[in-house]
Amino acid sequence: MPEILGHNFIAGQRSAAGAQRLQSLDATTGEALPYSFAQATEGEVDQAAQAAAAAFAEFRQLSPARRAEFLDAIAAELDELDDAFVAIVCRETALPAARIQGERGRTSGQMRLFAQVLRRGDFLGARIDLALPERQPLPRVDIRQMRIGVGPVAVFGASNFPLAFSTAGGDTAAALAAGCPVVFKAHSGHMATADLVACAIQRAAERTGMPKGVFNMVFGGGVGEWLVKHPAIQAVGFTGSLKGGDALCRMAAGRAQPIPVFAEMSSINPVIILPGALAKRGEAIARELAGSVTLGGGQFCTNPGLVIGLQSSGFSKLLGDLGGHLDQQAGQTMLNAGGLRSYVGGLEHLQAHAGIQHLAGQPQQGSQARAQLFKADARLLVDSDPLLQEEVFGPATVVVEVADDEQLRSALLGLRGQLTATLIGEPEDFEAFAWLVPLLEEKVGRILINGYPTGVEVCDAMVHGGPYPATSDARGTSVGSLAIDRFLRPVCYQNYPQSLLPEALRDANPLRLRRLVNGQWNDDVIA
Amino acid sequence: MPEILGHNFIAGQRSAAGAQRLQSLDATTGEALPYSFAQATEGEVDQAAQAAAAAFAEFRQLSPARRAEFLDAIAAELDELDDAFVAIVCRETALPAARIQGERGRTSGQMRLFAQVLRRGDFLGARIDLALPERQPLPRVDIRQMRIGVGPVAVFGASNFPLAFSTAGGDTAAALAAGCPVVFKAHSGHMATADLVACAIQRAAERTGMPKGVFNMVFGGGVGEWLVKHPAIQAVGFTGSLKGGDALCRMAAGRAQPIPVFAEMSSINPVIILPGALAKRGEAIARELAGSVTLGGGQFCTNPGLVIGLQSSGFSKLLGDLGGHLDQQAGQTMLNAGGLRSYVGGLEHLQAHAGIQHLAGQPQQGSQARAQLFKADARLLVDSDPLLQEEVFGPATVVVEVADDEQLRSALLGLRGQLTATLIGEPEDFEAFAWLVPLLEEKVGRILINGYPTGVEVCDAMVHGGPYPATSDARGTSVGSLAIDRFLRPVCYQNYPQSLLPEALRDANPLRLRRLVNGQWNDDVIA
Repeated sequence: MPEILGHNFIAGQRSAAGAQRLQSLDATTGEALPYSFAQATEGEVDQAAQAAAAAFAEFRQLSPARRAEFLDAIAAELDELDDAFVAIVCRETALPAARIQGERGRTSGQMRLFAQVLRRGDFLGARIDLALPERQPLPRVDIRQMRIGVGPVAVFGASNFPLAFSTAGGDTAAALAAGCPVVFKAHSGHMATADLVACAIQRAAERTGMPKGVFNMVFGGGVGEWLVKHPAIQAVGFTGSLKGGDALCRMAAGRAQPIPVFAEMSSINPVIILPGALAKRGEAIARELAGSVTLGGGQFCTNPGLVIGLQSSGFSKLLGDLGGHLDQQAGQTMLNAGGLRSYVGGLEHLQAHAGIQHLAGQPQQGSQARAQLFKADARLLVDSDPLLQEEVFGPATVVVEVADDEQLRSALLGLRGQLTATLIGEPEDFEAFAWLVPLLEEKVGRILINGYPTGVEVCDAMVHGGPYPATSDARGTSVGSLAIDRFLRPVCYQNYPQSLLPEALRDANPLRLRRLVNGQWNDDVIA
Repeated sequence: MPEILGHNFIAGQRSAAGAQRLQSLDATTGEALPYSFAQATEGEVDQAAQAAAAAFAEFRQLSPARRAEFLDAIAAELDELDDAFVAIVCRETALPAARIQGERGRTSGQMRLFAQVLRRGDFLGARIDLALPERQPLPRVDIRQMRIGVGPVAVFGASNFPLAFSTAGGDTAAALAAGCPVVFKAHSGHMATADLVACAIQRAAERTGMPKGVFNMVFGGGVGEWLVKHPAIQAVGFTGSLKGGDALCRMAAGRAQPIPVFAEMSSINPVIILPGALAKRGEAIARELAGSVTLGGGQFCTNPGLVIGLQSSGFSKLLGDLGGHLDQQAGQTMLNAGGLRSYVGGLEHLQAHAGIQHLAGQPQQGSQARAQLFKADARLLVDSDPLLQEEVFGPATVVVEVADDEQLRSALLGLRGQLTATLIGEPEDFEAFAWLVPLLEEKVGRILINGYPTGVEVCDAMVHGGPYPATSDARGTSVGSLAIDRFLRPVCYQNYPQSLLPEALRDANPLRLRRLVNGQWNDDVIA
């Protein structure tokens, strides 16, 4: 394991120009770990953004296969991160070793998935409309299109996934795959982890001959604003709070040249329990739901924060069972002290609301988060009460009992945009409640049937996105291979000689791409 | 031809609730035409947006083939618009009949192109990752993805294309194809045209059994703000000024739920003339360039507003020839009086600048726009002087003579984002100046070789877009079939029973789509 230097990563070098040092803390004990980090100066942030800009022209023009080599090399380096590394991540985040080992595999798997996307080549979106010199009344000239990277991307590390949504996480992987150099802002909650992962990326970059500046990382509070406002930065990826994401969007929109921000923010992930399932397997649902609510200390973007059911003795029984499971949960150490404060504050807001009742959960005290169950009046949902729409980040959930189908519909229409919605039901439920499906489609990025939203598969078909405030742009996803689309834009080449065309668009089709040629998809060479 | 009622189009009905009437004017004489229009009230704008929202669930769930029928029916109705219609468009815009006839064909062709996109089905982006129940350490559940419309879209008509970028124009076609109902804000410069085209869309909607509210249109100044701020509206399409587009972006970002704005705004479309071409065919280039600068009164988004060449006697000769052609151009009536005022204002700003010299063009007086040629100091480009970056909408162009390759590079780096850039060269030029191509790729949406940017082909490979300020979102295009992407977002279906899945994602593949199944593209049925 390399020494944890704590210096910023700029253009393949380490830099510590400023005087201020930041300390990494043990998440469980709060004590200082023996690692400190150089808060980046404004000059260093500028250098990092300039380094990314300088790398862009070369990096984006590398063949997809070369960029795939780089991603595969990062994956291999991540897999090599050993138990000593895992131990450091665990100390910084209070997450258990098995979770970190799993997340390491997920993070390297994510890099390999994007390497596959690069080798497949469809991300280029190659389209060719051949010249029609005889067309009447006017001839058509040769017109071709493909997508290129938008430019340097600023990525913000998330607190809750020190690997999969951080230094070498999904946003970094998608940006690099798209040909966009990255400037990564390390999260203050796991800076030693970030340093070691950045070293791994650095080794992969050197080994595969990538341009210096393809990956840069800065430490420090407040440096994000310099980064988002830097003219070289062309897009932003972020996972965090609604307040934080909104602030980045405002900064980005206020630039002389506005840029897109892909922020994954706030979601309460409703789970709707339908009557047939309740009757048949209410006890199992209560147990499974308690597991999903408390998994990882409830610190998942897809944590089920809202459970909805139709008023019935069966639903009352489920609430009793769910409360019993949550009552029995041991306390959990949260990712950091700020997270616990924020959780306790969120619980206090719920407790203070006249329309919300505490159903179960041990009193919240000390340094560990206790699971909590609340029940809210259905009218709060129907009237879009803001408190009920806000994510309480931690192992708490709110249940809502609706009187009938009509109130269920009104309650769901009152919901804001979500990452996920879940239907728990039996086949007869899906016949009776088929109307729920299109309604939920308009509210969320992912609908699950008979599952739980925690646990986001990294694959081609995943959508980890959704209408605001789940994300700042419903047209993107931050998990899965479609995430690359956020960092690409189309360019059109009109009447180009073959020699000047990018390989993807040449008649000889050297990349063997499937292309849209005169309105038909084929993988042909153009004769 | 139906009577021009001048009432707003709301949910398949006509509505004129307010007292204020707006007058259509003859663009050439300024006199009132015998048509007046009901300024929409805030209540009517609300009704129009609500009508679009009410139509959304049904419209987006129609099969792509049904939506294609609707677009084809609109195309047929547009083709039926007769000489009397063309005469009205000409009176409202001062554009010649041949141009309007051509634009009519382009507009119906655009509808048919999107109908083809719908029948092809790739816009759905169907992806399927099948369950892997045996996977270690965790099984994978079945996960599928497709794209759906984002919701009701507000579209703003452009002044300069009364048909192709207006009521039934590209943004409307793309939104309808995506399954998004439209609320169209008619441009004040051609309201009678808008009324007749909206009637044509209405007939097509009725004939093909579309839901009421699939298309709505409102008249009036200031109604755009109500529309963009309406909670039912989920995206905005706009073609117009930088100031107007920026204002819409600010409104959209300031909403409780921010929405994307696709604004096509300001571009000066640099044309770079390389030495070999200059030597071989300078005279022809001067003649062709004069034609492109003055085409349609210079009122194209892709009008070449900047001509760049390397200092030489050949380039001086070209400037003389170009000036001669522009001097000889007759005056042209602009689209409206406001356009002429704005053009004259733009010329005055150029004339008042110490670093800019007037080279040719008849004095600007009276009601017609005269073609003008200016020359600017290359340092103005290098230093990104804002005046030189601003589009002067009309038949004027600015030439810049650079000293050498190095100054050429600096000048191009100083440019803001553009819709197009054009290289005029011979094969030996492209060898010597190959470095220009990647530099321009990072600045523009479309690069042309040996052509002129005016005249935008409507096809699959076209990009009419580009980095800010050419557009507000470089990842989109407002011409060509890729424009549909702006109004789609992905939705993921996890562990769905076949009966609940959308047709596009069912195992039996009833739409015969090519889908990404377990990382491989195929058009198979899943056994």
